Amino acid sequence: MSEGLRIAERLLAGDRTALARLISWAENGDSRFRAAHAAFYGRVGRARRIGITGPPGAGKSTLVNELARVLRGQQKTVGILAVDPTSPISGGALLGDRIRMESRTLDPGVFIRSMASRESHGGLARAAVDACDAMDAFGFDVILLETVGVGQAEYDVVGAADSVLVVLCPGAGDGIQAMKAGLLEVADVLVVNKCDLDGADRLQNDLSEAVHVRFTKRAWTPPIVAVSAGKSFGVEELVQEVERHFAHLEAADLALSRRSKRVQHVENVVDERLHRLLWRDRGWRAHVERELARTVSPYEVAEGVLAELTARLSAGPSMSPVDRKVSTP
Amino acid sequence: MSEGLRIAERLLAGDRTALARLISWAENGDSRFRAAHAAFYGRVGRARRIGITGPPGAGKSTLVNELARVLRGQQKTVGILAVDPTSPISGGALLGDRIRMESRTLDPGVFIRSMASRESHGGLARAAVDACDAMDAFGFDVILLETVGVGQAEYDVVGAADSVLVVLCPGAGDGIQAMKAGLLEVADVLVVNKCDLDGADRLQNDLSEAVHVRFTKRAWTPPIVAVSAGKSFGVEELVQEVERHFAHLEAADLALSRRSKRVQHVENVVDERLHRLLWRDRGWRAHVERELARTVSPYEVAEGVLAELTARLSAGPSMSPVDRKVSTP
Repeated sequence: MSEGLRIAERLLAGDRTALARLISWAENGDSRFRAAHAAFYGRVGRARRIGITGPPGAGKSTLVNELARVLRGQQKTVGILAVDPTSPISGGALLGDRIRMESRTLDPGVFIRSMASRESHGGLARAAVDACDAMDAFGFDVILLETVGVGQAEYDVVGAADSVLVVLCPGAGDGIQAMKAGLLEVADVLVVNKCDLDGADRLQNDLSEAVHVRFTKRAWTPPIVAVSAGKSFGVEELVQEVERHFAHLEAADLALSRRSKRVQHVENVVDERLHRLLWRDRGWRAHVERELARTVSPYEVAEGVLAELTARLSAGPSMSPVDRKVSTP
Repeated sequence: MSEGLRIAERLLAGDRTALARLISWAENGDSRFRAAHAAFYGRVGRARRIGITGPPGAGKSTLVNELARVLRGQQKTVGILAVDPTSPISGGALLGDRIRMESRTLDPGVFIRSMASRESHGGLARAAVDACDAMDAFGFDVILLETVGVGQAEYDVVGAADSVLVVLCPGAGDGIQAMKAGLLEVADVLVVNKCDLDGADRLQNDLSEAVHVRFTKRAWTPPIVAVSAGKSFGVEELVQEVERHFAHLEAADLALSRRSKRVQHVENVVDERLHRLLWRDRGWRAHVERELARTVSPYEVAEGVLAELTARLSAGPSMSPVDRKVSTP
């Protein structure tokens, strides 16, 4: 039995060490993850996935901790994944105030993991989905997926969740700024955190107006929930709003919604490995360097590479790989 | 003569309409851009490119406006490119407080453009480099490249510049938060904006400590510059620090630094077009949907796609595309 299959068996038997190992494999793009994933995928799909994003300093970590507290009070088990950008220098995740979460770490119904990834090309989103799948198969009822940055790659990460919470707070990262950063567009629920601070009412009004203008034509209008995570205020109401969003998804077509997100996952897996294959394993990078040194223009170099690649990829899918596998055992 | 070549000629003749057209092409991944780029690439490389990033609300737009003012005072022409995340709903860039910049727009020595891109897979960084190349060939002395988000994709955008300014301000987005978001790692110069506000000294101290810990082993230590862009305070000093960084690059090996960034550009061009070719033009997306609907696991689906693709890509570069082009005229 391959190592991947062994780890998958241990995961399904409830071994937390196996879960931690799988998330590390997901993070590193380790090839052993694939066999494991295929083995535990049949148990994926029960967990509800909640993405949490927002600008630095909005209090996301504290809120995640509070959400876990409320969900534990409902007897739900909770997996937490914090996706931190990587430091090219330190090479690891910046745990930051993850440590504050220690109050939860002694609870066997909670699993906390921080994950970093310097990978571009969908690698970050791919790794996050992989890690959520492992937590899902392990049996957690709810998965909280938090990103630290506010940008396209980070939106792609939380976008793979069933519900996306955008956390804002009064001050520097106010409503207009949130709109500028494209945060509103990814929100299923808007959270005004630190709602006891000056400016919270204004932020709520600004958001309310913006939502009114932008979301009129959509089936779901994001509610705006005032919360003070640090003072444990409003978190129960927030959980209710998230439940309401999930009920909306179920009424629409949860399976369809999840399947279309799953297609993105497959694209990310393929793109990431193709990128690695081309630029790391094959000699294309050295080739590009040589051409540029000869002052060939970047687009001419790219055209050359693409001409070679597309010639080889000129046909679409020939037949189902699964059929093929069956026919040639 | 192709439309691309005609536009390139007009660009080199100083036609601002041609520049605007080229940036739109870059933004939309329009194929006409390629011919134009190859035609004007010989004139690329004179401009100094300065990337500006930081959390929403740090005052980046005001600072960019001030930098343009100081640089204009030095008789330098300035191109400004603001890369905004796209709204999937509105489908366009959120101009936000770009309008504040209007004081500069009547000056023929300044060109301002906002750019959006929903493209993943390096598309945002690719488009930004393309637009900077067009402004560079047009003849601007300095290009200011600003991103609105703080995340991996946005770091890749400003990372293509010669010097990266990370703008922070006291309040929500303070020092610890900046470290968590990986902002410090991309900085060549750290800017404490709104330095007259409470907490600015603490922020400066925090950053100073963090820089001391993290950057000891690197050839360049990012200076920390206190600025109040809204009050036109400290901007001259900031420009001096950026010049000092550029002198450092020149002393090290500017051409080498730029060429290694240019390799990334080529990779982005190839990856983006390969992604589009696979998932949009060819039938792979429908294939993946079919397989997933049959409840084949995502990794098995991906393996199938990759097996087909890699079989066709199994060899590395066979010969120089340029040589090939020459040998078969």
